[in-house]
Amino acid sequence: MSTVSAPTRLAPKNPIRWSNSRQGGRENALDSIKLGIIGLGTVGSGTVNVLARNADEIARRAGRPIRVASVAVRDLAKARSCATAGIHLTTDPYEVINDPSINIVAELIGGTTLARELVLAAIRRGKHVVTANKALVARHGNEIFAAAEKHRVIVGFEAAVAGGIPIIKAIREGLAGNRIEWLVGIINGTSNFILTEMRDKGRAFDDVLKEAQALGYAEADPTFDVEGIDAAHKLTILAAIAFGIPLQYESVYVEGITKLEAQDIVFARKLGYRIKHLGIARRGADGVELRVHPTLVPMRRIVANVDGVMNAVLVKGDAVGHTLYYGAGAGADPTGSAVVADIIDAVRALTVDPQHRVPHLAFQPSTLAGGVPILPMGQTETAYYLRLQAEDRPGVLADVTRILGDLEISIEAILQKAPSEDETHVPVILLTQRVQESAMDKAIAAIEALPAIRAPVTRIRMETLS
Amino acid sequence: MSTVSAPTRLAPKNPIRWSNSRQGGRENALDSIKLGIIGLGTVGSGTVNVLARNADEIARRAGRPIRVASVAVRDLAKARSCATAGIHLTTDPYEVINDPSINIVAELIGGTTLARELVLAAIRRGKHVVTANKALVARHGNEIFAAAEKHRVIVGFEAAVAGGIPIIKAIREGLAGNRIEWLVGIINGTSNFILTEMRDKGRAFDDVLKEAQALGYAEADPTFDVEGIDAAHKLTILAAIAFGIPLQYESVYVEGITKLEAQDIVFARKLGYRIKHLGIARRGADGVELRVHPTLVPMRRIVANVDGVMNAVLVKGDAVGHTLYYGAGAGADPTGSAVVADIIDAVRALTVDPQHRVPHLAFQPSTLAGGVPILPMGQTETAYYLRLQAEDRPGVLADVTRILGDLEISIEAILQKAPSEDETHVPVILLTQRVQESAMDKAIAAIEALPAIRAPVTRIRMETLS
Repeated sequence: MSTVSAPTRLAPKNPIRWSNSRQGGRENALDSIKLGIIGLGTVGSGTVNVLARNADEIARRAGRPIRVASVAVRDLAKARSCATAGIHLTTDPYEVINDPSINIVAELIGGTTLARELVLAAIRRGKHVVTANKALVARHGNEIFAAAEKHRVIVGFEAAVAGGIPIIKAIREGLAGNRIEWLVGIINGTSNFILTEMRDKGRAFDDVLKEAQALGYAEADPTFDVEGIDAAHKLTILAAIAFGIPLQYESVYVEGITKLEAQDIVFARKLGYRIKHLGIARRGADGVELRVHPTLVPMRRIVANVDGVMNAVLVKGDAVGHTLYYGAGAGADPTGSAVVADIIDAVRALTVDPQHRVPHLAFQPSTLAGGVPILPMGQTETAYYLRLQAEDRPGVLADVTRILGDLEISIEAILQKAPSEDETHVPVILLTQRVQESAMDKAIAAIEALPAIRAPVTRIRMETLS
Repeated sequence: MSTVSAPTRLAPKNPIRWSNSRQGGRENALDSIKLGIIGLGTVGSGTVNVLARNADEIARRAGRPIRVASVAVRDLAKARSCATAGIHLTTDPYEVINDPSINIVAELIGGTTLARELVLAAIRRGKHVVTANKALVARHGNEIFAAAEKHRVIVGFEAAVAGGIPIIKAIREGLAGNRIEWLVGIINGTSNFILTEMRDKGRAFDDVLKEAQALGYAEADPTFDVEGIDAAHKLTILAAIAFGIPLQYESVYVEGITKLEAQDIVFARKLGYRIKHLGIARRGADGVELRVHPTLVPMRRIVANVDGVMNAVLVKGDAVGHTLYYGAGAGADPTGSAVVADIIDAVRALTVDPQHRVPHLAFQPSTLAGGVPILPMGQTETAYYLRLQAEDRPGVLADVTRILGDLEISIEAILQKAPSEDETHVPVILLTQRVQESAMDKAIAAIEALPAIRAPVTRIRMETLS
């Protein structure tokens, strides 16, 4: 039994029953799938944390529990940013790979020499493999996938491109009916962070790089990121799955951001453009373009507005047109999210019923939470925009704000239009802070009852999406 | 044999071999999967067109050819916007469903009465089903999925939400490791188009609706779209797969855009917000919020900048953070793209090797196009930003533009900085139109050789992403 328990801080205050799994759903009665992990750095710890924190929901989705059985680390004594109680730790990665009870191995050490050996060894032993290693896939993917094909195992690599964004799945399966014409991606968060800072603060490259290193957004040796190599690895992978060509990292044109000058960012802006570091893959009649370089993009495009460490990939398919995928391109939890998605895919492949691989409603039917209440609108909470038609005389606004105050509704902003001569009533706009709809219903009823207000009050809800 | 052929206009001028499928890859040696379609309106025709146009690539992805064998239509004589040669047409949908050679049935008629009967009948006959019908899934999905579970078949409904955006797959599989906290979506293109026009042109709702109807963006009876019912159907589906709850359409709070006034859009903008029609699903300690209504969103958010008929869904997961999915939410080809993706998923489930369901590099290994050249940079084509350090004297710019003109490089814009007193050279910025990189290399070499220019010339590539 796994003793990795979910951190209690994430439990809701008044827990409701989100799962019927204790009522004897047959899926959860299946044995755990045992997972081995090689490497417990940032991504490894993120993966262990996500698996532990969401263990119940993951089991409901995957059809059976996933247990981290064994983890290989370089240094047993090192402090970890995840709980390791109940996990067998070893310094020998082959102990993980050779364990016959382990069905899936996650390679999360990085690098291309040892990682390649370990992944090939795991495949030869019939394990499904999950990796976050873009350099490995871009440089040795053809060999690795041929081995996987031979041994009939899955090698998942969703985490290798754009962190938590499910871009591999989107292109490989979601857009499978399309002839993909081109794709462009902001696929290196470090470079994008540096460019965003250079633009917003007019600072020089070297200067921002130092800050990025201090913030942990850039490695001590930032070459892979700022010289475009990391982006080229990812572009290699995206181009292969988009166009049906083998992985060809050595053919990518690569230019980083180290030579960009702050003045070019300023001039570009004056002309209506932003400079983004893009990976670009395009196919034409004569062949495929694969290139990574700083690029001017019209300011109004969504890609031009993807800032900081965020990633985005824009894909043009002949049927679907333009689709865009946006999210965090790195970090322990986002990358862990992609690793876990691949693990769940592998679990589904290991489960008995192949025809019914993914549950229709994402969770196994017996675990759908039927008892969760859908809240009546009165119990929902949002901020509000209110427009009143008020008589233009003193004291009206005081009456309105008193009503709101009595119901503990805070006002965020007020906008009052200057009255024109022929109007008896003027519009007054109020933005409120978040409050329960039932309180707002009361407030609006009271405001509409004021003699100086012409009913009805216009109410539009507001969400900050932060 | 299918006689539906790809339109020749889409063939490249100098075709290169994108597929090795004629070299006897074992996957393509498998028999065709036979597809039946019920309904040949907008979505049905789009589906047939996508399947025909991309038949080769789809077979390389799916592992075997997909053939539209039989289609049920209401009127045999009606003109279609897709080729139907080689397809058996019938007015009896049960003829499609009862055909024992048909493995997959696509229900593309809409409505909830006949569609429900037909889908349940197809399931009972052991067919995999694909549908684009959001009303059907939202209102009868629980019954339909229970039947599918019983008969061990897949019911694909990617096309039911946000058209071509693979949002079902993203949430159900790509984010499967996450506890989804909330999601918001612009999931009705008609409403979004109307709101965008009201904002940009200051026009009234009724006025824009008429235009939307003339453009074909709104139905003759627009109630489902503008009253929020269509968005509520889609939100019902998204909430179920995000939270693991049954489909509960009847519990969604629904408010459309018919009562929005142009002045509120103006006031919102003054306060830094845009009004979007959103579907919002959020889970909290007490239950789930499910609501569809006009919403103020801060202008700087990407969701606030999704305009016209485009759709977007923003999902907050505990591990991945915010991810966003953007694309066309309707239309024949985009919706066809999603229908075909589901068909390919079903084909994979029908194929022999369940462990190797999705090829690692999206296309079956034997069909990877090894002979496709990766173009050297000289043969790629982009627009360019050039920054020259030029002596501030007459004639220099004429020399530069002559060099560009001789190489047939058109200038899009010139930006020249006023010289300051202590500078001998001033920056001159040129934006060019698209040209081959080899021509630009020559131009830059010639410009750098001019005595009045201080080398090097700064060159940054430019993409309009249109």
